[in-house]
Amino acid sequence: MTRPLPFDVAPWSIGLSGLSLSALAHRESVFALGNGHLGWRGNLDEGEPHSSPGSYLNGFFERHPMPYAEGGYGYPDSGESVVNIPDGKILRLLVDDEPFDVRRGRLTRHEQHLDFRAGTLHREVTWTSPTGRTIEMTSTRLVSLTHRAVAAVRYEVRAVDGPVTVTVQSELVANEPLTEVHHDPRVKEALTDPLESLGHFLLGTAATLVHVTRGSGLGVAVAMDHAIHSTGSHAPTVTTETSPHLARTTVRAQLDPGERIEIVKFVGHEWSASPSTAALRDRAEAAVVEASEAGWEGLAAGQRERLDEYWACNDVVVEGEPRLQQAVRFALFHVFQAAARAELRSVPGKGLTGTGYQGHTFWDSEMFVLPLLTDTAPESAEQALRWRHATLDHARERATQLGLRGAVFPWRTISGRESSGYWPASMIAFHLNADIAAAVMRYLRVTGDEVFEREAGVEILVETARMWVSLGRWDDAGRFHIDGVTGPDEYSAMVNDNVYTNLLARANLEGAAAAARRHRDVAEALNVTDEEIGSWTVTAAAIAIPFDEERGVHPQSAGFTERERWSFEATTPEQYPLQEHFPYFDLYRKQVVKQADLVLALYVAHEAFTAEEKARAFAYYEPLTVRDSSLSAGIQAVVAAETGHLELAADYLAEAATLDLDDLQGDTADGLHIASLASLWTAITAGFGGMRHGSEGLRFAPRLPPQLTRLAFGIRVAGGTLHLDIRPDSTQYRLSAGPAFAVQHFDEQLVLQPGVPTTAPTPPAIAPGPRPTQPPGRRPRAFDAAFAD
Amino acid sequence: MTRPLPFDVAPWSIGLSGLSLSALAHRESVFALGNGHLGWRGNLDEGEPHSSPGSYLNGFFERHPMPYAEGGYGYPDSGESVVNIPDGKILRLLVDDEPFDVRRGRLTRHEQHLDFRAGTLHREVTWTSPTGRTIEMTSTRLVSLTHRAVAAVRYEVRAVDGPVTVTVQSELVANEPLTEVHHDPRVKEALTDPLESLGHFLLGTAATLVHVTRGSGLGVAVAMDHAIHSTGSHAPTVTTETSPHLARTTVRAQLDPGERIEIVKFVGHEWSASPSTAALRDRAEAAVVEASEAGWEGLAAGQRERLDEYWACNDVVVEGEPRLQQAVRFALFHVFQAAARAELRSVPGKGLTGTGYQGHTFWDSEMFVLPLLTDTAPESAEQALRWRHATLDHARERATQLGLRGAVFPWRTISGRESSGYWPASMIAFHLNADIAAAVMRYLRVTGDEVFEREAGVEILVETARMWVSLGRWDDAGRFHIDGVTGPDEYSAMVNDNVYTNLLARANLEGAAAAARRHRDVAEALNVTDEEIGSWTVTAAAIAIPFDEERGVHPQSAGFTERERWSFEATTPEQYPLQEHFPYFDLYRKQVVKQADLVLALYVAHEAFTAEEKARAFAYYEPLTVRDSSLSAGIQAVVAAETGHLELAADYLAEAATLDLDDLQGDTADGLHIASLASLWTAITAGFGGMRHGSEGLRFAPRLPPQLTRLAFGIRVAGGTLHLDIRPDSTQYRLSAGPAFAVQHFDEQLVLQPGVPTTAPTPPAIAPGPRPTQPPGRRPRAFDAAFAD
Repeated sequence: MTRPLPFDVAPWSIGLSGLSLSALAHRESVFALGNGHLGWRGNLDEGEPHSSPGSYLNGFFERHPMPYAEGGYGYPDSGESVVNIPDGKILRLLVDDEPFDVRRGRLTRHEQHLDFRAGTLHREVTWTSPTGRTIEMTSTRLVSLTHRAVAAVRYEVRAVDGPVTVTVQSELVANEPLTEVHHDPRVKEALTDPLESLGHFLLGTAATLVHVTRGSGLGVAVAMDHAIHSTGSHAPTVTTETSPHLARTTVRAQLDPGERIEIVKFVGHEWSASPSTAALRDRAEAAVVEASEAGWEGLAAGQRERLDEYWACNDVVVEGEPRLQQAVRFALFHVFQAAARAELRSVPGKGLTGTGYQGHTFWDSEMFVLPLLTDTAPESAEQALRWRHATLDHARERATQLGLRGAVFPWRTISGRESSGYWPASMIAFHLNADIAAAVMRYLRVTGDEVFEREAGVEILVETARMWVSLGRWDDAGRFHIDGVTGPDEYSAMVNDNVYTNLLARANLEGAAAAARRHRDVAEALNVTDEEIGSWTVTAAAIAIPFDEERGVHPQSAGFTERERWSFEATTPEQYPLQEHFPYFDLYRKQVVKQADLVLALYVAHEAFTAEEKARAFAYYEPLTVRDSSLSAGIQAVVAAETGHLELAADYLAEAATLDLDDLQGDTADGLHIASLASLWTAITAGFGGMRHGSEGLRFAPRLPPQLTRLAFGIRVAGGTLHLDIRPDSTQYRLSAGPAFAVQHFDEQLVLQPGVPTTAPTPPAIAPGPRPTQPPGRRPRAFDAAFAD
Repeated sequence: MTRPLPFDVAPWSIGLSGLSLSALAHRESVFALGNGHLGWRGNLDEGEPHSSPGSYLNGFFERHPMPYAEGGYGYPDSGESVVNIPDGKILRLLVDDEPFDVRRGRLTRHEQHLDFRAGTLHREVTWTSPTGRTIEMTSTRLVSLTHRAVAAVRYEVRAVDGPVTVTVQSELVANEPLTEVHHDPRVKEALTDPLESLGHFLLGTAATLVHVTRGSGLGVAVAMDHAIHSTGSHAPTVTTETSPHLARTTVRAQLDPGERIEIVKFVGHEWSASPSTAALRDRAEAAVVEASEAGWEGLAAGQRERLDEYWACNDVVVEGEPRLQQAVRFALFHVFQAAARAELRSVPGKGLTGTGYQGHTFWDSEMFVLPLLTDTAPESAEQALRWRHATLDHARERATQLGLRGAVFPWRTISGRESSGYWPASMIAFHLNADIAAAVMRYLRVTGDEVFEREAGVEILVETARMWVSLGRWDDAGRFHIDGVTGPDEYSAMVNDNVYTNLLARANLEGAAAAARRHRDVAEALNVTDEEIGSWTVTAAAIAIPFDEERGVHPQSAGFTERERWSFEATTPEQYPLQEHFPYFDLYRKQVVKQADLVLALYVAHEAFTAEEKARAFAYYEPLTVRDSSLSAGIQAVVAAETGHLELAADYLAEAATLDLDDLQGDTADGLHIASLASLWTAITAGFGGMRHGSEGLRFAPRLPPQLTRLAFGIRVAGGTLHLDIRPDSTQYRLSAGPAFAVQHFDEQLVLQPGVPTTAPTPPAIAPGPRPTQPPGRRPRAFDAAFAD
C-alpha cells in the first residue's frame, strides 16, 4: 500500500502539509464540517478537483424507486437518498484570468487543518500560476454551532510578486454532477439533478436560490451575501447574478505585491417539507443577515465559545500516545458535529459527511452514538429521540403491515419510512426497536427528564413493548420465544431467541411497564390497561435466554453453538469482508460472527451475565468474530478490558481510533463512521474506565493498559459534570457541581461532594485466562503498530 | 364469479361454441399447440384481439439485467426470458376490404376445438361483415410432431351470400408488442423489440425473415410458403413482399356464393446460438419445402399417426365422470406436446404455452413431468435429462461460485445459467440437484438405457453427489447434516435437515456410488477414486433424518414441529395466497406449508417410511398445508389414496384436473401448469393405481374412489407396455409384448406373460383413520362439485 501523506500529529487539530490527490476523497470526509443540521464536506474552495461535492441538510432527501428482481410482501417500493443542496462552499479564484487549480501551475504550499477548538477548517496555499504570478490564499470555513442555518468562509488572497488582477467567483451551485454510481437507471434518474428551481433572487449583493426535489417534494433555499475588504489602492468591483441553478458574486481586484483582498461569505440554509418559496427564501436570507451582523469575528468567537464549553466538560485526555490523543478528540469532535444542532432529526450513520449508506440512519444511532451523547451532550440525545418519536406513525403503519401490534421502526431511513431492500438483514432486525427503547431508558436514567418522558418516552416504550408481545410466542413450558429475527451480527439471519434481542426486549418490556406505572395518565391516553402492563411484566419474566450447558456459554441465538464452524483456516485475507466473497446462506448457517452480538449483549445487558459467563463467552466468540463491521472493535475493547485482557483491549481501541483516519475499511471516502467514532469513547469510558450504568447506579472499574499513563474524561451527572482522572494505580473522581453523588469504584462506594476530589486506588488485577485468539489474519494490529509512523 | 362460456364435454377434444372475449387469455393457453421445440399459443388466426401473441422456440430467449435494491454475493446479474420469435400463425382476412374481426360485424358461429387425436386446433366461423356480406371460414392448425421445425395452417373461406372479394394476408410478424408488464425499465427495454433483423428474403412465393436477439445473440429464421386452391371461376392473385420485420403473402380471390378458397400455410423455424444468416435461412426454408412436399394431408396424417401411437400405449381411461376423462386426456396431450420433440432442451414450467415464469424450467420438470414421460414416452425423458447434462459446465461453475464441489444446477433457467432473483427460495433449494439425480435413476430403472448412463447419467450422479458431500457437515456423533437449505415447501426457507432433501440426497449418493461401480471407466474419467465412492456410501448411511419422537412424525425439517403454528383461524380467504399478504419471515418461522414437502417425500421416498408413519405424517401435515402452489394437490391425492382416504384423494384429483381448465389460480393466461397437469397422471397411477417403483420392482395397489367405476392406463416396461384395467373389485394386468414381467399386486406377486391378461382381486380395505382436515377455507372442492356444470 502506498500510503498517502500522513496527517500531522497535534493534540487539538488534524491537518496535512501538502496534497495527495489520490487521497482527496478520504480527506474530504476527514475535513468535513457540520453542526447536525448542515454539513459541508472538506472540498477544496475552488470546487475542483473533488471526489464528491457535499452540502447536506439533515432530513433533506430525494425519493427513488427500489428495484427487485423478485419482489415480496412488505418490500418498500421506494427508497430515500440524501442529495446535495445547492453548494455554498465554492469560491473560485482567477489570477490574471488564470484559474487557480492545484493541478496546474506550481503549488509551493498547501496546508489544511481542522481545528477541534476553533471548529474551523483552515487552509493556506501558495501558488504560482502557469504564467508565473504567485499569490498566497488562505481560507477558513465554519459551519456554525450557534446559528444552525449558517456557514461562512473567510477567504483571503494576497499578491506576492507583482501587480495582479484577482477575480473571485463566489457561488451557489445546484445539481452538481454526482460521482456516485447508481446501477439502476430509475435510481440514477431520480438522483441526478434532483433539484427543480422554484426561483432565484437578487437583493442588493445578496443572492438566493430556491428549489424543490422532484420526488420527495422538499423545498430548500440557500442564500449568500459577502463582506469584502481590500487593502489595494483600487476598490474592487463586485457584481452578482443569479439563474435557476447558479448564483454568482464576482469580485475583481487589482493587487500590488503585499496587497490583499478579504472576502467573507455568509451562507444561509433552510428546508421544509411544505415548501412556500417566499417563506423559504425569507428564512434563508434572515440567516444570512444574522450572520452578516455577527460578522466573521462574531461567528468565529461563538464557535470557539460553544466548543470551549463542550471540551470543558467532555474532553478526554490520553497520555502515552499522542496519536491516540488526537484520534480521540477527532472522534469526539465529529460525533459532536453530527448531532449538535440536529434538533428533531436523526444522527445518520455517516453524519453529514458523505453519501455513504444513502444518508440513512440505523440502529447504531441509538446503540453507539446516543450513549456518548447522553453522557456528554444530553440535549442532543433528547433531540435524536424526539425525532424517533416523531416518526411513530410510520412505525405503527409498518407494524400493521407486518401483522404486528405497536411500532416497528425502520432499519434504514431518513424520513422514518423503511428504506431497506434486503429483508433478512432489515425487516426482521427487530432489536432496533429495543435499542431505541434502551436509548430512551438510558436518557431518562441520566437526565431524569420527566417532560421528555411524558411527551415521548412513555409512548416509545409502550409501542415497542406491544410489538414484542405480538412478535413472540409462548411454548408449552411457559417460556416466551422470539423466533425468526436477525440480531446485530449480520452474518446470521432469521434465528430464534437471539440472546441480545431477547435481553433487550426484556428490558424494553420491563421499562414500558415501569414507565406506564409511573405515568398512569399518559399510559391511559395510549389505551394501556393494567392488564396490558401485567402482560409486559409476565412476558419479560418468561423470555427465553438460551444457554449452552455443555459448553458453558450463551449461544448467540438458539442452536448457534451447534452450527458448523466457519472454515477460517481455508479463508484467505483477500476473502474479507466475507459477505463479498461468500453467499449469505453459507455465512448464515455457520459459526462466524461479523460483529459483536452476544459480546455486545455482555456489555449493554451486563447484569444478565456473571463474570465467569462473560469471560467464557468472550473467549468463545473471539475466535469466531471477523470484524467485517466498523461496529465491532470498540465493543470488543470494552469486553476485553472487563475480562482482564487489557492489551487486547488496547489493540481494539487502536483499531477503532484509526478506522477512519487510516481508512481501514477503504470506504471513509463515503463519509465518516460516526458510530465507530463514538465507540472509541465507549472503549475508553466503559472499557478502561469500566463505566456501567446499572440498577445500583454508576459503577467504574478503571484500569489502564500498559501503553497509557493517564486517561481522563468527564460525563454529565445530575447537576454537574463528573470528571475521572485515571492513573495506573489510582483514579481521582471530581464532581463539578450539584448534590452529592455516589459511585461505585470497583466494589467500593464513594460518595462524591462537589468540588472535592476523591482518589481511590486501583485494586490488584485478577489474572485473566489466556489471551483470546481471533480468526487467522483477523487479529487486530497491535496498539504500537497501529500508531507507528 | 361470472363464469365464461364452459368448455364442451367430449372424450377426445376440448372445445368451445361461442367466444368469451373476457376469457381470451385463458383460452389462448388452453388451445396452445406445440411439439416441445415449437409452441404456438391458441391465438385467433387474424392476430387480434389477443391477450398475448405467442410463438416460442424452446431454448430461445433474451438476456436482461437483474435489478436488486441491495445486491449480494452470487446474485445473478442478468436473467433470461422467453421472447417471441416471428409469428407465423397470422392470416388476416378482408371481405370486400372489410377486415374480419370477431368484435365487428355479426358473428353467428364461432367454434374452436383442440383435438387430442388429430393434434390440431380447429376453428369454424360464420361471419357477416358490417356491410352485410356473409362468409364461412374454417382454419385448422397444427404444430408438427413429425417435422419438429414445422407448423401449418389450413385456412378456408367460403362465400355464402353473394359475390365477394376475399383478401387473405398471411404473415410473419417480428417484435409483436408485448402485453406483459415489466416494472423495471432495463428489463422492459431488453424485452421490447428484442429481435434485430439479419435479413429478409423472397424466393418465388416463399418468404423468410432472419433475426438475432440483441442481448443473448441467438439467431432465428422463420420461413413460409403457401399452397393455394380456389374453386372460384377466377384464379386468385398472389403477391409476396418482405421487409425486416414483416413478410406478407396477399391472396385475393373473387368468390361467388358457395365458392371457396383454401390456403395451406407452411411455416418453418430454426434457431441457433451461433447464427449464420445463410445457414439459418437455409434450414428454415428446407423445413418449409419438406412440409410443402408432405402437403397438408401428409402433415395431418403424420400427426394423427404419431398420436395414435402415443394413445395406444398411454391413454388413461376414466369411467364415472366424463369431465374427468376429458381433463385427463387434456393433461396428457399437453404434457406430451411440451416434451415430444424438445430434443436436448428442457420442459419449462409452462411448456411453450405462455411467458409465465419467463419461460423458465424448474425442479418440477424432473419431479413432476419426467416421471410421467419416463413411464410413457421415455425417449422424451431422455432428451430432457441430456439437456441437463449439457448444462453441467454452468452447474459446475455455479458450484465453484458458491464454494461447493461438483455441480449446482440452476433453480430457474432457460440456458442452464441461474436466473433467480431471490436466493432464499432458489440458490439454496439444493434438492433440485437430487431431483435431477432421481430422474436419472428413475429413467435408468425403467429403460436400462446403458448408452445414456455412460454418456450422461454417471456424470450427473457423480457431480451432484460431490456437491452433497461438500454441502453437508458431520456432527460429533457421526451423523451427516445438511444445513441452511430450502426444501420444496416455499413457506419455509433456510432450514436444517429438510427430510425430503436429505432422503433424496441419500439416494443421490447411493445412486452415484452404484453407477460409478457399474462403470468404473466412466467414473475414472471423472477422476472418481474408490475412496471417493466410499465417501458417498459412508455419507449416505450417515445422513440425518430427523424424527419427532414426541409427536411420532417426521418434521419437515429439524425443529419444524416445534415451531409456532400459523394462525389459520385468523386468516381470511382473501389473504391467500399467503405470500402476497404476509411477510416471508412470518411464514418461514411458523408451521404452515405451501405445498407437499414432507408429504412429497412420503411418496417419492416411500420406502423410508412405515405405513403407520405415512398415515400419521399425512394426518399431521394436512391441517398445515394451504396449497398455494399448483404442485401440491396431485401429490396429496397420492398420499391420501395410500393412507386410505380415497374420497379426499378424489377431491385432490379433481383439483389437479381442473386447475388449468377452471383457471383455479387465475394465472393460466400466462401458460398452462405443465407439472400440475402431469401430477394428474401421478394422482391416477400412483394414487388410485398405487404404483410404486421400489427396490423390489414395480408394485401396484389399485383401489378406486367411489365416484369412479373404472380406471385404465398403460406404462412402458422392458420390451412393451403394461396395461392396467382397474375395476372396483379387481384389476386386470396385461403385458403387450416382451419377456415375462413380475409385478406386485398389493402383497401378491404376479408374473405376467405377454398377451395373457391376469386379473387379481382387490383386497378388502383397512379402515383408515378419520379424514384429515385442511386449514379453514382450504379444503379442496368435493369431486362432484368440481365437475358439476
